[in-house]
Amino acid sequence: MSREVINIGFLGFGTVGSGAVKILQEHNTEISKRLSPKLKIKTIASPNIANRDTRWVKDNVSFTTDVTQVINDPDIDIVVEVMGGREPANSYIRQAMAQGKSVVTANKLLLASDGPALAELAQSQKVSLAIEASVAGGIPILNAIREGIAAEKVVSICGILNGTTNFILTEMENSGALFSTTLAEAQKLGYAEADPTLDIEGLDARDKLAILTMLCFGRYVDVKKIPTQGITKLTPADFAYAAQSRCTIKLICSARLVNQELILSVAPTLVPRNSLLAKVNGSFNAIMLTGEAGGQTFYYGRGAGSGPTGVAIVSDIIRIAREIAVNSPGICPTFGYQNLVHQEEIAISSKALAYFLRFTVADKPGIIAKLATILSDNNISLDSIYQEKVYKQRDYLSFITMLEPTTQQQLAKALETIQTLDFLIEPPLVLPIDDNL
Amino acid sequence: MSREVINIGFLGFGTVGSGAVKILQEHNTEISKRLSPKLKIKTIASPNIANRDTRWVKDNVSFTTDVTQVINDPDIDIVVEVMGGREPANSYIRQAMAQGKSVVTANKLLLASDGPALAELAQSQKVSLAIEASVAGGIPILNAIREGIAAEKVVSICGILNGTTNFILTEMENSGALFSTTLAEAQKLGYAEADPTLDIEGLDARDKLAILTMLCFGRYVDVKKIPTQGITKLTPADFAYAAQSRCTIKLICSARLVNQELILSVAPTLVPRNSLLAKVNGSFNAIMLTGEAGGQTFYYGRGAGSGPTGVAIVSDIIRIAREIAVNSPGICPTFGYQNLVHQEEIAISSKALAYFLRFTVADKPGIIAKLATILSDNNISLDSIYQEKVYKQRDYLSFITMLEPTTQQQLAKALETIQTLDFLIEPPLVLPIDDNL
Repeated sequence: MSREVINIGFLGFGTVGSGAVKILQEHNTEISKRLSPKLKIKTIASPNIANRDTRWVKDNVSFTTDVTQVINDPDIDIVVEVMGGREPANSYIRQAMAQGKSVVTANKLLLASDGPALAELAQSQKVSLAIEASVAGGIPILNAIREGIAAEKVVSICGILNGTTNFILTEMENSGALFSTTLAEAQKLGYAEADPTLDIEGLDARDKLAILTMLCFGRYVDVKKIPTQGITKLTPADFAYAAQSRCTIKLICSARLVNQELILSVAPTLVPRNSLLAKVNGSFNAIMLTGEAGGQTFYYGRGAGSGPTGVAIVSDIIRIAREIAVNSPGICPTFGYQNLVHQEEIAISSKALAYFLRFTVADKPGIIAKLATILSDNNISLDSIYQEKVYKQRDYLSFITMLEPTTQQQLAKALETIQTLDFLIEPPLVLPIDDNL
Repeated sequence: MSREVINIGFLGFGTVGSGAVKILQEHNTEISKRLSPKLKIKTIASPNIANRDTRWVKDNVSFTTDVTQVINDPDIDIVVEVMGGREPANSYIRQAMAQGKSVVTANKLLLASDGPALAELAQSQKVSLAIEASVAGGIPILNAIREGIAAEKVVSICGILNGTTNFILTEMENSGALFSTTLAEAQKLGYAEADPTLDIEGLDARDKLAILTMLCFGRYVDVKKIPTQGITKLTPADFAYAAQSRCTIKLICSARLVNQELILSVAPTLVPRNSLLAKVNGSFNAIMLTGEAGGQTFYYGRGAGSGPTGVAIVSDIIRIAREIAVNSPGICPTFGYQNLVHQEEIAISSKALAYFLRFTVADKPGIIAKLATILSDNNISLDSIYQEKVYKQRDYLSFITMLEPTTQQQLAKALETIQTLDFLIEPPLVLPIDDNL
């Protein structure tokens, strides 16, 4: 019954894949103290394998451009999918699982959309589909939710889930530089990709939030329905104004269950400086989870990078190898739930929050009066108005109003009227201020 | 093969036990979405059961003072030991495992001393011994180390592992009150026990550090050998002086592996205010872990309480139930390692640290000169000397010296000479200042 060798095949050999292979090699002695079967990398398949440095890989690993040599090899027990992208990764994973192989993947984009179907297939095939590396690479947060606090009823989860945007926001705050300058800097340093859209528009964070939502609540949504706001509109002035309220600005992903309704959002948010989330700088990630019985827990670590993500992948491999050793892969469902429930609607929060609004307007008299009237007509109280001369530019100026707590619905109504005002140079920037973080 | 009901028996029904029973009852619907077999509490045995309120417990649970009704009942699959103390808990757990039952325990005192033997017995009996609730109740840290980052090579782990002392330190810092006053307050609030020795002398934290050491490094030591310093000698002045160096004081447990040597300590430590550990206030716990590949991760949450600890216990139950459902309990060794290695010696760190020294002396001239000479004779540089008049009392006074980084060996040698000085009213208080936290 017990197995001496567990064979592993890789699909993809980029940063994440080679990171995992390195961990398997370099932590080999340590891993063998934890695990009785030996882990053996049999085959690494990648369309670009000819362009990769593979000389450092030991132990007669086969390299190929032909993925079927991994997917169809009956000797391979665990397939590690680190190609990324929805297709062909999705088909490859399905084929591998159909042949009784367990799969480890870091593919957040795929999991956010096809995770429920893939988890179901894994369950019916009695294989494991393991996904620790897909969210907050260096933080074992999925394992913590799925097993560590499996008995908890999660009330809410908030997180900083994208290292690129957190790096940019931290730099903008520290240097006072423009978004575009900081993005270029991040690209030069390798923290942002040549096409940074998925990161800076919040789409990568949104995918990760969708995955966490499945793990915390057993529900999934159409990711495109998650209200998502990127960080491209932020200016150095916003950080200066936020600082006056003893806040910093972070791209916060949040999921809450209120009266069985699911409330999701990805948005740059003013976070009080004394919150643990405000201490998360550079490319780090963090998650704040609130449970009904256990209260608050907070998890912090690297979001990406070949080392942290490699640890996540190989830790998944170790877990699956232990299960295979007793002929029982797939003991715990991928998302911790036996069945995920599809949620058609994402609810709108009725919780009143304070808001930060930045207006960029043509400089003429009566502007504040008009705005204040509209807000008051909508029962929204103005907390304060800031305008620093240094941010006055050419013939327009920008100023900030802080609103006292109001609901999203009330604010939306007021904004509808505000957006018709002729002195607006651009739509106002609206950021929630979350004192509960 | 698949099981419809998994029967659970409890040994003990105090705060922790009743917390777990509450979670099983109140989160029942949520748990059934995660787990196919039904969890049924069959019997609760406790010597004090007559004095406990059991009316809220549903579903025909049997209550008894006779532990053998749990240990020897062939229907019971999982025994939850929440009596605490070394004996008879140890014997009960051994008897239960000998009969093929898996065990969940929160017993840190027992695990710190007998954990390796119990884990071995569990392995040979092919049952699970699950211990999540024993360290940092609300934080799933053991699961994170054992499975979440199983592939990591841990370099070091530092933590705040005792809620009682952290509550007292936080209160002393905020209120400027004496240790004794704050302890009495903590006792009144239920944060400290009538006999607080295990907490305030650092012994409870030491046990938890011993458990983390097994999980991180696969090694165990005689807990009594771990250098341990309690918090009873701290005064409000120490916090005031620490604040001048932008530090707070926390009871820090740390374990590091340096050149394969294990370095352990439990000591009140000056922690820089910008460290995440400095933000851990009240009865919260936290762990900072450094891995060779994944870098730093940080975990924060409640250290105790019936809710958080109950979640930990029931999460362990869920995991074991999943394993029992496929007839494979004990898939993962208790401490993550197949075999724990006994470590005779605890090494002394050769890392130079800055130190905080408080001297209480009879007020006469030449004291500083004498101390400075001894330090200089031992190649130790004085960074600064503080003395605030407000802390001068009667005929003696206390002052603080901050030393530039020096090794423990050098400092010990200097202290040997210093302790012979006749103007010392009491032995100096020595606290490390750890800038790496």
